[in-house]
Amino acid sequence: MFGRTLWPRRASSAQTAKERLQILLAHERGTGTGPDYLPALQRDILEVIRRHVPVEQDAVEIRMERGREVSSLEINIELPAPRR
Amino acid sequence: MFGRTLWPRRASSAQTAKERLQILLAHERGTGTGPDYLPALQRDILEVIRRHVPVEQDAVEIRMERGREVSSLEINIELPAPRR
Repeated sequence: MFGRTLWPRRASSAQTAKERLQILLAHERGTGTGPDYLPALQRDILEVIRRHVPVEQDAVEIRMERGREVSSLEINIELPAPRR
Repeated sequence: MFGRTLWPRRASSAQTAKERLQILLAHERGTGTGPDYLPALQRDILEVIRRHVPVEQDAVEIRMERGREVSSLEINIELPAPRR
């Protein structure tokens, strides 16, 4: 399921040389009474990614949706091109 | 897009009282030459989640797919029910 729902496959071209990391989180609280971990997880996950790769501040795009039963978070990061 | 691709909405029932956290990661390397961060990120992200909520070892389901251009990781976690 996952492979089909993320970036669509494209033909190889100069544009596809970019590296990207996409993270989707969904927190299903069921009854709607549980705490919302997403804001804290967003901060911590970005910190964790920065341990592995330098991430420019403006290379990160974040979308958060907070619903009664399900909250979701989408983080899109453009990574620096790998060294050749 | 995200809201539609994750867990389908279900009618409220006793079963929906469970809390779940789903994390999808995709790393698009483009040229296929970049390093594969997913195994390290998987470990670090689980560590980060455990800072916020106790996660039982057998409550975690992980699926990783490693392709030439795109690698993806799916982490499904069943969370302990919140205190009332």
